[in-house]
Amino acid sequence: WMEVPLQALAADPLPSWNEGTVKHAIIDFVTRATTEGDAGFVPVEARIATFDNDGTLWPEQPLVQGAFLLKPLRSRVKEDPTLSKRQPFKAILEGDLSELSLMDKARLTKLLGETHAGMTEEAFIRDVRTFFQNARHPRWDVPYNQLAYAPMLELLRYLRANGFQTWLASAGGIDFMRVISEATYGIPPQQVIGSQLKKSLDEAHAPSVLRREARVSHVNDKAGKPVGIDEHIGRRPVFAAGNVRSGGDIQMLQYTRKRGCPGFALLIHHDDAVREFAYEENDGASLKAARQGGWTVVSMQRDWRRIFDGTRVPDENGGG
Amino acid sequence: WMEVPLQALAADPLPSWNEGTVKHAIIDFVTRATTEGDAGFVPVEARIATFDNDGTLWPEQPLVQGAFLLKPLRSRVKEDPTLSKRQPFKAILEGDLSELSLMDKARLTKLLGETHAGMTEEAFIRDVRTFFQNARHPRWDVPYNQLAYAPMLELLRYLRANGFQTWLASAGGIDFMRVISEATYGIPPQQVIGSQLKKSLDEAHAPSVLRREARVSHVNDKAGKPVGIDEHIGRRPVFAAGNVRSGGDIQMLQYTRKRGCPGFALLIHHDDAVREFAYEENDGASLKAARQGGWTVVSMQRDWRRIFDGTRVPDENGGG
Ligand SMILES: [Ca+2]
Ligand SMILES: [Ca+2]
Repeated sequence: WMEVPLQALAADPLPSWNEGTVKHAIIDFVTRATTEGDAGFVPVEARIATFDNDGTLWPEQPLVQGAFLLKPLRSRVKEDPTLSKRQPFKAILEGDLSELSLMDKARLTKLLGETHAGMTEEAFIRDVRTFFQNARHPRWDVPYNQLAYAPMLELLRYLRANGFQTWLASAGGIDFMRVISEATYGIPPQQVIGSQLKKSLDEAHAPSVLRREARVSHVNDKAGKPVGIDEHIGRRPVFAAGNVRSGGDIQMLQYTRKRGCPGFALLIHHDDAVREFAYEENDGASLKAARQGGWTVVSMQRDWRRIFDGTRVPDENGGG
Repeated sequence: WMEVPLQALAADPLPSWNEGTVKHAIIDFVTRATTEGDAGFVPVEARIATFDNDGTLWPEQPLVQGAFLLKPLRSRVKEDPTLSKRQPFKAILEGDLSELSLMDKARLTKLLGETHAGMTEEAFIRDVRTFFQNARHPRWDVPYNQLAYAPMLELLRYLRANGFQTWLASAGGIDFMRVISEATYGIPPQQVIGSQLKKSLDEAHAPSVLRREARVSHVNDKAGKPVGIDEHIGRRPVFAAGNVRSGGDIQMLQYTRKRGCPGFALLIHHDDAVREFAYEENDGASLKAARQGGWTVVSMQRDWRRIFDGTRVPDENGGG
């Protein structure tokens, strides 16, 4: 992971963002947050920024953790063929990734518990590492972690260069993301918040190891996001970013709001079928909450000059 | 919180530690951990150090969180006098702080849940802040958070000056310690691990707030410490410090051990009745584990030149 030097950022900290109200709102917030005496000033210890992962920092079609689960799920059905007639196994085997990509996060976390129960933490990490080395995105044919959105990587660096601590706050599994968070986003494992399984210490093993249980201890989605953020950080974020799809980020974005303090909520709208994907939310709750809360809504089509890092993923249209 | 400049530390990074095998073992570990090419070298991202709190960074007679609980417990008994005949209330009202100080951490966490259930996170933090402003240690007559051990504050600074990230990993309540961790130890709230209650998001309140529930979600003691460390950090610490009393740190100290990696375990023995307190552990398990694991055992009497910061707390004997 290479940090861009500060001087380079000073010229245009967000070159992959098109000029416009969104880019200007971000730069204005950061400039004021770092200007002592300004009403928007934020003391450095309070500069906490939390980012949803799927659909906010990288694509969620298909869901990366779903792609990871497909192989162990098929193995389990092979071991126990009666599962192939039971849900959710039946639907997953028929629908493959589309089913896993649409599954709600509580059910997905439960599946992750079932496929890897009893495994040591170290063995699970090796499995995840192997997945990221071998798996490729069906459309762009590159490893999944090369598909981080270029504008969001710039935003992460820009915030860090201005004293913000950047965190992942995803509904995905915490241990899954921790394997790639530093290399992909410059976010160390200890700044990753996610859905969790219970673990227990196996002291019979030398040295002692943690083993994964099948029980879900926390689903870091919707109202669970502020709970997870409080547990890991103990402060409200002053900046948070999420995306339109399931309403999973509404409570986190609302949680940036605190009486008497500036807060910035960024909501990404996937409206670019040419360069990425276009989709809406069934009930429109995220965009409605954005209007009510005065959040900054990103149109991928309008606001992003390029979607991916052009040296690794050719953009289908413009940019790169 | 003021960091001591690096040059000042270079002279003698641990002036409150007497010369001897313990001080030399610490300096040797840190020197090798930061010397590239040495077999004891630790890459900067793996320089994670975890510290128990009560009895390791400040005194545990009486238990500070017990002192905090006394007032709300008395209020609850006033509201409901039948409680005064039930345990643990009866014993606490009779024994005051001694009972609370000896209580096992799971029961203490449960009590904390009961006394503050339904309270918002913000209101709880205000209560803790008020406690630390007003309460004084019965022996030294200073606020509890001025009783951090001077040698341990030096150790925390020394480790940070050498690229280590320092964490609290205490059986005490996470939100209780977070209020004072930064000012007392230079450890920000997001690097505090502790026992936890369930919380839920109250969205009816504007802005949304977290409320404490009476249910305990994690007891960060004994085998729970590696679990809490994994949840918050996602890596094994290479350095950990705990103390002799209840065996609560054994599993954390063992967890620093990983095949092929250097690890350092520090165990503090309270053997200084003159300047602080002298006590042992019923079954001697911590000292036994120290012998088996080759841990470094600190004798407060022999290894610490002074116990407290002499400008705030007069040492009864020597130092300061
Ligand atoms: Ca998302
Ligand atoms: Ca202790």
